[in-house]
Amino acid sequence: MTYTLGDREKAFSILRETKKEFAARHWFPATSGNLSVRLKASQAEEGADQAGESSSSPLVFAITSSGKDKSKETPEDFLLVNEYAKPVEKTNLRPSAETLIHSEIYRHTDAGAIFHVHTVFNNLASELFAEQTCVPVKDVELIKAFNIWEEDARIEIPILPNYADIPRIAELIEESIVPKIPGILLRKHGIYAWGKNEFEAKRHLEAFEFLFEYVVRWKSLGQ
Amino acid sequence: MTYTLGDREKAFSILRETKKEFAARHWFPATSGNLSVRLKASQAEEGADQAGESSSSPLVFAITSSGKDKSKETPEDFLLVNEYAKPVEKTNLRPSAETLIHSEIYRHTDAGAIFHVHTVFNNLASELFAEQTCVPVKDVELIKAFNIWEEDARIEIPILPNYADIPRIAELIEESIVPKIPGILLRKHGIYAWGKNEFEAKRHLEAFEFLFEYVVRWKSLGQ
Amino acid sequence: MTYTLGDREKAFSILRETKKEFAARHWFPATSGNLSVRLKASQAEEGADQAGESSSSPLVFAITSSGKDKSKETPEDFLLVNEYAKPVEKTNLRPSAETLIHSEIYRHTDAGAIFHVHTVFNNLASELFAEQTCVPVKDVELIKAFNIWEEDARIEIPILPNYADIPRIAELIEESIVPKIPGILLRKHGIYAWGKNEFEAKRHLEAFEFLFEYVVRWKSLGQ
Amino acid sequence: MTYTLGDREKAFSILRETKKEFAARHWFPATSGNLSVRLKASQAEEGADQAGESSSSPLVFAITSSGKDKSKETPEDFLLVNEYAKPVEKTNLRPSAETLIHSEIYRHTDAGAIFHVHTVFNNLASELFAEQTCVPVKDVELIKAFNIWEEDARIEIPILPNYADIPRIAELIEESIVPKIPGILLRKHGIYAWGKNEFEAKRHLEAFEFLFEYVVRWKSLGQ
Repeated sequence: MTYTLGDREKAFSILRETKKEFAARHWFPATSGNLSVRLKASQAEEGADQAGESSSSPLVFAITSSGKDKSKETPEDFLLVNEYAKPVEKTNLRPSAETLIHSEIYRHTDAGAIFHVHTVFNNLASELFAEQTCVPVKDVELIKAFNIWEEDARIEIPILPNYADIPRIAELIEESIVPKIPGILLRKHGIYAWGKNEFEAKRHLEAFEFLFEYVVRWKSLGQ
Repeated sequence: MTYTLGDREKAFSILRETKKEFAARHWFPATSGNLSVRLKASQAEEGADQAGESSSSPLVFAITSSGKDKSKETPEDFLLVNEYAKPVEKTNLRPSAETLIHSEIYRHTDAGAIFHVHTVFNNLASELFAEQTCVPVKDVELIKAFNIWEEDARIEIPILPNYADIPRIAELIEESIVPKIPGILLRKHGIYAWGKNEFEAKRHLEAFEFLFEYVVRWKSLGQ
Repeated sequence: MTYTLGDREKAFSILRETKKEFAARHWFPATSGNLSVRLKASQAEEGADQAGESSSSPLVFAITSSGKDKSKETPEDFLLVNEYAKPVEKTNLRPSAETLIHSEIYRHTDAGAIFHVHTVFNNLASELFAEQTCVPVKDVELIKAFNIWEEDARIEIPILPNYADIPRIAELIEESIVPKIPGILLRKHGIYAWGKNEFEAKRHLEAFEFLFEYVVRWKSLGQ
Repeated sequence: MTYTLGDREKAFSILRETKKEFAARHWFPATSGNLSVRLKASQAEEGADQAGESSSSPLVFAITSSGKDKSKETPEDFLLVNEYAKPVEKTNLRPSAETLIHSEIYRHTDAGAIFHVHTVFNNLASELFAEQTCVPVKDVELIKAFNIWEEDARIEIPILPNYADIPRIAELIEESIVPKIPGILLRKHGIYAWGKNEFEAKRHLEAFEFLFEYVVRWKSLGQ
């Protein structure tokens, strides 16, 4: 893919802003979590790009570098990687092992941004419903954040096992993606939420976190 | 109704400030929620206006536009609508479908401001007491925020079904309004709280949220 | 009591700072709560003052005015009152009815500052232990914030009924004060915490709130 | 140990920044908690220092002074102490009694920073598992923050009794340290978390707090 310095800077700027907001919510405990933004194909490639998955334009995305305290701002917070989760620029930054999961999500959806965070509530929800391999949610208004408008909407947010070997998780991504549900939970680990751009990905993430907290607290009421 | 640019600017300024405060509390998850302020009738109309519901002056109110990330400030955050929830100025902004609910509340109360937010606790409270169609609260000091001063005060906060079709909810508003209780819960959705101005609406909203958290946590204690 | 403009300004400045800090923690929901600081007697009166309760110097204290949104700063946030909870300066500000409770605490302790806040956890704790008329806490390290250093310290934080008629509560204050426990809970209402100055009052308040949250959450664990 | 003014200033600056961050999270309720940073040995001593425990260079560390409101910044927030927890510079600041615990941890680990905070969740966790004398945690992704990468990792965070007599606690530190677990809980008191530098200590602390909240909330789900 061809990208300009402007494309790169725009992606980094989105990540910078989002990182700051989420850090303020303590959504990156212990340097965990990562955020990525897909670089848009240049003008000439746009036609192909709009076709979504079948785009022939090779994937490049900006992602937070691994192991940093995300409450701090440094000149080394982000890097560009390709679909194999390898840096496309000379850098001494290390992409997270989980970059592969981002790559798989980009390859099999039209996601333009993917946000991954660990919260106590998403961990609890993933464990509460581990046997069902999905978190079922019914009727809660915020389901509409996923553009699901039925009155008695019932959704199922998929849960994957949290293998230590990330490529084993990556392999499961494609088949786990549920239509209309822009997110996947890893058991006792965290949520990957995405959207066609950073605005949508944030909206989806906030909706997931609301729903996880709702189902967990509901359970604590003995209901 | 006749309104000046000053009236308009004042209403937008109130919304701007309130939006910022509530966004900092994460009260607009996933772009949800909306805030509105009724435009005061001009001097000449004041007599009629003070008569409350029977005011002959047509309703105009400022409201947050739909689908925005309310943690950001933009020049397109608010618009003016009439009692039919239609924009009264040329705009490409979209009022939320829920604007109709605001309109119904303005038509049947002397509200000067209406604030609608989704929180996990108001969602839980609405579901916990769904069968009773109201959240009962007894004795808690913060009931006094509603100007209810009796020692053993017991209030009931009405809960409406959360129909996907907003006009169906709007139809229920008038009959659901309980004297002295400046709020209505939508089931698994959120609270509409109002007051004669933004100061009172905020006080009422904070009281409701405190009470919802109280009743939900009380329930979690197995009491 | 003789006080200088400097004494007055110092007290207001302490209240301003504390109000801002506690507002940021949402400790004044729905305009609730109030803060006060006792004006120190002037140099000449100091001897009497150090005798504590028996001081012959009449009580004057600065207190937050009633019914304000404490997240805002205005020129009308504070006023000076005497032991009868009446303003000692010409003002159109209204002291809260609860000012009488502050006055009683000042009269029967050597408190230099009293902070009163409503939180969900202090409300829950007061109701959980209502029958015992005190919240018992055992062994928690933060009890040391009250200068209680025994290893198996067990304290009892007194709970008073929340009469609508404040003078009836005020009458109970003197006999309810427990040695070494600088606080009184009103049932389903809130905590009054004090200390010999604002620093100590804040330390005590934070300790109480920690302990209330601890005992309530502990109960939710079914223990 | 020889240290320069620059070493001293660097340590104080780290403490200043960390204190501010943790105060914003309300991790120092009621003036509790303390933070320390070990002063690095000067160039000439480095060889010895790298040998870890057997270092012959005498221990000097910077620590927060006792009994301060840690949400404020003052020129008297920190002091330097030696392995006996005594000030190494003329000062009227008082090191906390708990300084001895820091000293013991520095003496028996390669810690470069130690952070001690009281939270409701770490208190609850310490009491929930008091009989086992450790908090067991299994499988949660954030265990990886301790550089433990096994898939079914199960860790045990040690719990010590909270003796009023600090030297009695200090005596237990050496034998309580568990390989790979950079933290010790005091029962109903708080956590001591450390790391080879402030970055690691913060990462470990955030991981512990996440895990404590997870196990406590999990228990509240009746699981």
